[in-house]
Amino acid sequence: MKATAKANANIALIKYWGKRDEALILPYNSSISMTCDAMETITTVEFSENYDTDTAIINDEELSSDQKRVYDHIGMIRKMAGIKEKAKIVSESNFPLAAGLASSASGFAALTVAAVAAAGLKLPEKELSIIARQGSGSACRSILGGFVEWKKGSKSSDSYAEQIAGKDYWKDFRMIATIVKEGRKAISSRSGMSQTVKNSPYYSGWLSSIEEDLNRMREAIRSRDFASAGSIAEYNALKMHCTMMTSKPPIMYWKPATVEIMNAVMAWREDLESYFTMDAGPNVKVMCMKKDEKELCQRLSELEGVVKTISCAPGSGAALSQKHLFD
Amino acid sequence: MKATAKANANIALIKYWGKRDEALILPYNSSISMTCDAMETITTVEFSENYDTDTAIINDEELSSDQKRVYDHIGMIRKMAGIKEKAKIVSESNFPLAAGLASSASGFAALTVAAVAAAGLKLPEKELSIIARQGSGSACRSILGGFVEWKKGSKSSDSYAEQIAGKDYWKDFRMIATIVKEGRKAISSRSGMSQTVKNSPYYSGWLSSIEEDLNRMREAIRSRDFASAGSIAEYNALKMHCTMMTSKPPIMYWKPATVEIMNAVMAWREDLESYFTMDAGPNVKVMCMKKDEKELCQRLSELEGVVKTISCAPGSGAALSQKHLFD
Repeated sequence: MKATAKANANIALIKYWGKRDEALILPYNSSISMTCDAMETITTVEFSENYDTDTAIINDEELSSDQKRVYDHIGMIRKMAGIKEKAKIVSESNFPLAAGLASSASGFAALTVAAVAAAGLKLPEKELSIIARQGSGSACRSILGGFVEWKKGSKSSDSYAEQIAGKDYWKDFRMIATIVKEGRKAISSRSGMSQTVKNSPYYSGWLSSIEEDLNRMREAIRSRDFASAGSIAEYNALKMHCTMMTSKPPIMYWKPATVEIMNAVMAWREDLESYFTMDAGPNVKVMCMKKDEKELCQRLSELEGVVKTISCAPGSGAALSQKHLFD
Repeated sequence: MKATAKANANIALIKYWGKRDEALILPYNSSISMTCDAMETITTVEFSENYDTDTAIINDEELSSDQKRVYDHIGMIRKMAGIKEKAKIVSESNFPLAAGLASSASGFAALTVAAVAAAGLKLPEKELSIIARQGSGSACRSILGGFVEWKKGSKSSDSYAEQIAGKDYWKDFRMIATIVKEGRKAISSRSGMSQTVKNSPYYSGWLSSIEEDLNRMREAIRSRDFASAGSIAEYNALKMHCTMMTSKPPIMYWKPATVEIMNAVMAWREDLESYFTMDAGPNVKVMCMKKDEKELCQRLSELEGVVKTISCAPGSGAALSQKHLFD
């Protein structure tokens, strides 16, 4: 009744933005991501009669009972397994939370894999992806390694992630996450997304242009075309942020450092090919090829607003681990 | 055959963005602006047989003959007047050029009024506005004072500016232009605009939501409703920039200081009501009421990226002046 799982974060190249079903977390559009090896969450779940209530300790802090998402997720898995025991959950991430760094993606992927195993179930990746999705949409992509597409599907049972290419297919691809000054986000992705869908006059343009982005990105990954993958990802991220900034009231995740990095990356491109992407937060992720990784990290660290860089290669799918976080 | 005119710059509250006719400068949408008293261009034009070619000296620099817009404009007015003499043009602005501070608006408004008078014509404001428009679209608004609407019209003869309210109607309205670090823009408004219309998936959303912005802004001006005017202007500016950032390749006018000001204005709003707007450049203009002007200018000056602030009240329409810039 106890299991531990690891999952890498993933950074979307084509963003998930907008839920057509809030309860089941079904998206308006498919999305494509890279699973990122250097950003990881480890989660141990134990179901036991010794526990009176579910408790979760995330990065050494106990989750309050009103942070319902984690407890709802455990409750759903408990119900699937037909068990009654309460759970203790301990989770640790090696990167900052709630900074648009996909902590909920790796978190819910690891939680899903650990809890399913602890509850005594054995499920294929597809089912794990569907369960993880209901905790946090983008978590369904962190079940798989390499380059991954979350198909929007037509209902819950066909809205899950599939691998486009494994982690060894395009080993030279790098995603460098930067942590910027004042990098904690002001508004959750959930509420940002929901407001955007409701009232941005640009959301319909987001949806009508997304299939082209998806098609071009799949093709860029398959043919390992970095210029194409990078520029489509950059364009797609700008489109996402522009739906937020044009909702009412405007949602602005960018900080001065965000724009400093964006401008720098565009200016460097003449002699160092890199592209940026941003999620629902002020931090910027910069894509480059392995040959430019060291130089790019150096240049990024020298920018005024950059506190830290985390360089990632394509990572592995979520997996069980033998080493538990508590006895 | 010599005349001098002054014109104030204007800052759009609802932006002009996109030309349906590049040659005649007919816009896809109507726009609304405030004429700004503290930003002024003075221009002297003389037609004389003593000149062999047209020459223009703008802020002490001679315009090269490939900067055709000014010379084309003079040529058009010369033709209208049926004269043959070449012109000498001297123009001075009291604020930085090509920084998204509407220097071409005040410049072409002053040039139009001076050249028309120097050519011996007397024309009503409507005709001056139509002529100014063909030099630089937004210049048609600087012919008039106070709050002004440029009606998109259906052809050249009905696409001109009209006053919504005179400069004394809403005396407490303030527009504070900030000059930021690295404030010169990288790409001209003309090419930015044209690329956006061509390939941003959000341009149709810009157009479909513009009538609502225009209606609400007219009403906000008439009822002197600052919260409404400010928030609509802010929203409209974000929408404009978002059409640029989502064109291919993305056009990014913002600098770190741009976002620093935007974030600061939003955060201050709890105790100091102000709103921002930006044109095709990195500088930010901040709107407030007169009672908050001093405090706001103080706070803006303390921001790291702000080099200078210029505080404007509603200004006058373009007018002839007796004092020439050259003998």
